[in-house]
Amino acid sequence: MIQFQCDYNEGAHPLIIQRLVESNMQQTIGYGEDSYCKEAIQLIKSACQREDIDVHFLVGGTQTNTTVIAHLLRPYQGVLTASSGHINVHETGAIESTGHKVLALPSNDGKITATQIQEAITAHLNEDGPEHMVQPGMVYLSFPTEVGTIYTYKELQAIRNVCNLHDLPLFIDGARLGYGLCSPECDITLPQIAQLADVFYIGGTKVGALFGEAVVITNDRFQRDFRYSIKQHGGMLAKGRLLGIQFATLFTNNQYFNIASHAIDEAMRIKKALKEKNIQFLIDSPTNQQFPILNNKQLEILSQDFLFSEWQRVDSQHTAIRICTSWATKGENVDKLLRAIEQL
Amino acid sequence: MIQFQCDYNEGAHPLIIQRLVESNMQQTIGYGEDSYCKEAIQLIKSACQREDIDVHFLVGGTQTNTTVIAHLLRPYQGVLTASSGHINVHETGAIESTGHKVLALPSNDGKITATQIQEAITAHLNEDGPEHMVQPGMVYLSFPTEVGTIYTYKELQAIRNVCNLHDLPLFIDGARLGYGLCSPECDITLPQIAQLADVFYIGGTKVGALFGEAVVITNDRFQRDFRYSIKQHGGMLAKGRLLGIQFATLFTNNQYFNIASHAIDEAMRIKKALKEKNIQFLIDSPTNQQFPILNNKQLEILSQDFLFSEWQRVDSQHTAIRICTSWATKGENVDKLLRAIEQL
Amino acid sequence: MIQFQCDYNEGAHPLIIQRLVESNMQQTIGYGEDSYCKEAIQLIKSACQREDIDVHFLVGGTQTNTTVIAHLLRPYQGVLTASSGHINVHETGAIESTGHKVLALPSNDGKITATQIQEAITAHLNEDGPEHMVQPGMVYLSFPTEVGTIYTYKELQAIRNVCNLHDLPLFIDGARLGYGLCSPECDITLPQIAQLADVFYIGGTKVGALFGEAVVITNDRFQRDFRYSIKQHGGMLAKGRLLGIQFATLFTNNQYFNIASHAIDEAMRIKKALKEKNIQFLIDSPTNQQFPILNNKQLEILSQDFLFSEWQRVDSQHTAIRICTSWATKGENVDKLLRAIEQL
Amino acid sequence: MIQFQCDYNEGAHPLIIQRLVESNMQQTIGYGEDSYCKEAIQLIKSACQREDIDVHFLVGGTQTNTTVIAHLLRPYQGVLTASSGHINVHETGAIESTGHKVLALPSNDGKITATQIQEAITAHLNEDGPEHMVQPGMVYLSFPTEVGTIYTYKELQAIRNVCNLHDLPLFIDGARLGYGLCSPECDITLPQIAQLADVFYIGGTKVGALFGEAVVITNDRFQRDFRYSIKQHGGMLAKGRLLGIQFATLFTNNQYFNIASHAIDEAMRIKKALKEKNIQFLIDSPTNQQFPILNNKQLEILSQDFLFSEWQRVDSQHTAIRICTSWATKGENVDKLLRAIEQL
Repeated sequence: MIQFQCDYNEGAHPLIIQRLVESNMQQTIGYGEDSYCKEAIQLIKSACQREDIDVHFLVGGTQTNTTVIAHLLRPYQGVLTASSGHINVHETGAIESTGHKVLALPSNDGKITATQIQEAITAHLNEDGPEHMVQPGMVYLSFPTEVGTIYTYKELQAIRNVCNLHDLPLFIDGARLGYGLCSPECDITLPQIAQLADVFYIGGTKVGALFGEAVVITNDRFQRDFRYSIKQHGGMLAKGRLLGIQFATLFTNNQYFNIASHAIDEAMRIKKALKEKNIQFLIDSPTNQQFPILNNKQLEILSQDFLFSEWQRVDSQHTAIRICTSWATKGENVDKLLRAIEQL
Repeated sequence: MIQFQCDYNEGAHPLIIQRLVESNMQQTIGYGEDSYCKEAIQLIKSACQREDIDVHFLVGGTQTNTTVIAHLLRPYQGVLTASSGHINVHETGAIESTGHKVLALPSNDGKITATQIQEAITAHLNEDGPEHMVQPGMVYLSFPTEVGTIYTYKELQAIRNVCNLHDLPLFIDGARLGYGLCSPECDITLPQIAQLADVFYIGGTKVGALFGEAVVITNDRFQRDFRYSIKQHGGMLAKGRLLGIQFATLFTNNQYFNIASHAIDEAMRIKKALKEKNIQFLIDSPTNQQFPILNNKQLEILSQDFLFSEWQRVDSQHTAIRICTSWATKGENVDKLLRAIEQL
Repeated sequence: MIQFQCDYNEGAHPLIIQRLVESNMQQTIGYGEDSYCKEAIQLIKSACQREDIDVHFLVGGTQTNTTVIAHLLRPYQGVLTASSGHINVHETGAIESTGHKVLALPSNDGKITATQIQEAITAHLNEDGPEHMVQPGMVYLSFPTEVGTIYTYKELQAIRNVCNLHDLPLFIDGARLGYGLCSPECDITLPQIAQLADVFYIGGTKVGALFGEAVVITNDRFQRDFRYSIKQHGGMLAKGRLLGIQFATLFTNNQYFNIASHAIDEAMRIKKALKEKNIQFLIDSPTNQQFPILNNKQLEILSQDFLFSEWQRVDSQHTAIRICTSWATKGENVDKLLRAIEQL
Repeated sequence: MIQFQCDYNEGAHPLIIQRLVESNMQQTIGYGEDSYCKEAIQLIKSACQREDIDVHFLVGGTQTNTTVIAHLLRPYQGVLTASSGHINVHETGAIESTGHKVLALPSNDGKITATQIQEAITAHLNEDGPEHMVQPGMVYLSFPTEVGTIYTYKELQAIRNVCNLHDLPLFIDGARLGYGLCSPECDITLPQIAQLADVFYIGGTKVGALFGEAVVITNDRFQRDFRYSIKQHGGMLAKGRLLGIQFATLFTNNQYFNIASHAIDEAMRIKKALKEKNIQFLIDSPTNQQFPILNNKQLEILSQDFLFSEWQRVDSQHTAIRICTSWATKGENVDKLLRAIEQL
């Protein structure tokens, strides 16, 4: 079976493996204070074109979201997010486990708007007795979203303006950041993300690393004591250099973007083939996740040789599936998929 | 201004005040282990027609909900509730502050159905990887609901059956329990509540007491160590006898139901007068809260002499208001309101 | 049995009862926004000789400690306290339930010193990797302490200085504040407390009220949004006026201090009688709690007519007991105790 | 500088690296449901000589301790541990962040005794009002301890008996389990650990893996839903196979014990050399951590070429240091250290 069901099927990019092998028996100090981490931090600062940011490495996405959100919020505050946001759906209540309500806003395309955020804040302030309700304390969004869509620069700028107006920090979950930034439809750059967000993270797990997410804190108000929060949430890897090595590799010679671009190229090939077959999509995604709607017959045929996620039952005859590509997707496997699609 | 905006405008029923005055300089031991509490517990057991239940007295509703829910759930579990449920809307995230997600089910009339609960559980179990999502761990409902509606015996029995099927405890928030049980449309009794719920509480704050809620734990699986939970959540009143005295008074000579019936009688008078004026209602409530929809002119007129809550803007010309009666509502004040309604 | 085992055996001071009776059927708005609360707040501001403070009313001590501490700390911070501090021993882990470690400092007399606090901070900062440990985030002390002792002005000033040096807020638990301030050995005033502490509370439960604690926030950095914290922790009483009425009564005509002085006078009579019998004390307390060490024979005799707490087994022949007086202690009961002591 | 300051200076055992390289581009499903994890689970069951246990893989120690303890305790319960226990000292309050008090028992050698546990429970039960205090809910101990000591079979059996008596689960932190089991003074086996503990973990991070801890749940009462707890605490690695591959390698051909034995052999060589120099030890450790007390001159000399932890200032002239060996320690580096010791 050829697997397209997620973007974490394989290990790490070969260059990462090579550096892990080479460094394996070196001795370094622990907990992210080694020279590899320092190197990676500097490379990420350069990529963000900002020196005044803090960079920290954590192991996984749920851990990162939990640590950042718990670090930013006051106890009675909640986090605004799209109802489909990862923190609202797929983290077993990790945010709530730190005491905070997830304030879900309705969304069809995985995105939220500046207007929605403004309305939520206004509604809260207009309450007769707002202290009886959870106070919106920050905004969480993912770039790309859970369904592969991306925000335009203008949309993010509008959200930033609302956040400024109400002194709310903006946190961008970049578990698939590379796949968003390398989309042909993306009009935004990493340095711009680093200007717009108070905190964001650069996903490694899904973009070339064995594991690891690089948290970037741009707002100095939230930089203090973040290592305490990492440690408390179990995110401080003893052999922290493993994260440093991986991110240093990804941010050397533009690797992170090169390998993300490959995933996008392959995804676009698949998207084009599906469109040529007049197959409809649940959502129009410009990134590495594609959500075609197959009829039962098509679903049965494709399932013989390929693994993908059944995303949503559309009706008794149709199902939206998710096809993921990644940095590791082999062109020959996509060729096979294209042939299978053609013959549907 | 005559106040109808809530059911906690006044102090306590005069009989309670009298007993508080009489007992004031007596010496008793603290923390609910005094003879007044013992008396009240016994009276409530009798009213519930069950001797195998545990009864505890807490101070307020948010505290009670938080204490009970935190006591019942495992850390990764959430509580199913109507989206309008008090725990989801008006407790500043108190449930989440103990680590638990509130799993809100859509509801137009404040009630949830056995089918909705079953579907939520089925959806969870059918997930590919249910452990990535919060597990439904209990059911919370209020009787009457936030908008004054009540469940029928058959509806509650169906919910009980679903709970049994999946081993979920059922917790009934009875902040206004008296007003529900005394509604002319109610087909259920306190002993039946005590059969159907694993835990419920009998509201005192809104039904005759200065403050206080009596938690009844019918399922012995949850009886153990409840006093630890009360103390940890700040609900163990030093002078616990104040709660014992109040509930002993309320459950002597059927006072609790007598005074609740008075509130219902007055509410029904108001409801009838509004109907006769062909005023529509946001919801058809058979209890002490009424939600008529007034036009702007009517709103302006009634607001001159009466205080009520503006519940929901219906359109630019209409607003649903909430009119509350209580044990303390004076007939003469309702007479005045009726005259004002008549002249609308 | 005449009870001396705690200072919450009786109800409330008769003046409070009287005002509760008088106001019982008045209608007021809820949640502490009524005119009684406003009156009480103003009286407390006057007593503190500061207008720039915020005053809030909560129901009980554990609730108050939990709410304040959770409001002040960042998630990875802990609270420094004497190991005998109420929050460390007798609140069923309420502080920990909000996510914070209690950092206990050894103490023989219930007090902690500026030096101990400084040392704890220094030790933390000198750690190789302080982020692996809980960061001291505030100082909690009680005045008087759990064993009746009180801080001198000089001691508190020294603690304040250390707090200033490290930007740590100082929170004073005044569950028995009146009994401390009215001690003949006290060299500090309420306005001075209001200068030294960032937050403190004036205990009502043990000093004349049915229940209730008045939280005073002097540092404007912590004033914002405190009502959210109160509500989240279940401390926002629906009929908030009950608290306003009680504190307004206590702070009219100096009642709070008058009734506290009575308790101290009676305690001093008992202390003197015990000393005249050459009975030793576990600790030399200048307030309403006295800790004489009785031999088994004496213990047996006194236990026949009087109730007190057995505080600590000293050796096989001796037990330290706690004798409490309060605002409600009757002189004639103390007379009986004195006669019994004399005959030991 | 040759590093002896901890046992996580290097990467992973070469056999692990080899298997990671070989498997790198294979496609597997995520979250620990792949065939490598299944293989590793089976190997660990065999090594434990029990088929009825559950095995789960987490990333790091703090995360593991937090997840297990939060999974086992009721909200008002705390965990008994030696005051030097990792959870009490070096996890930034991670346990408290899940709501639980750490109940520290005094200890000079890192161990606690059955008697101490029994006394803590008895003291709790004898309280007048135990519900005002945190209830002891489980026992945590580390094998070996933070200072390298190990429990005898008899000591653990006695603790087990106390736990049985009071229905408390026993959790053994085995971050360095291999180094304990391979100590020449150890009289206990892995299958015996798996009989004595309700839950324990087999440390990978410090014993040959890049990272990873294998949690073994022997008591079926705690097996249910553990994956929910892992996910909620951020411990469910997307590419879970990385953990499976590592533990499968370690538990093939007895590797785990072989490499641990190497560390012990080297530690014993160092211990012997120090003893021959009549250097005293802070504690007599039979495992891979050694705590010699050096005078200032010796400290200065050894610090020129070797890195170790300064553990504790003994007096103005002496400091206890920690020297760690591990699976990765090179004999030639130990030779150099021995020569340096000899010349002290």
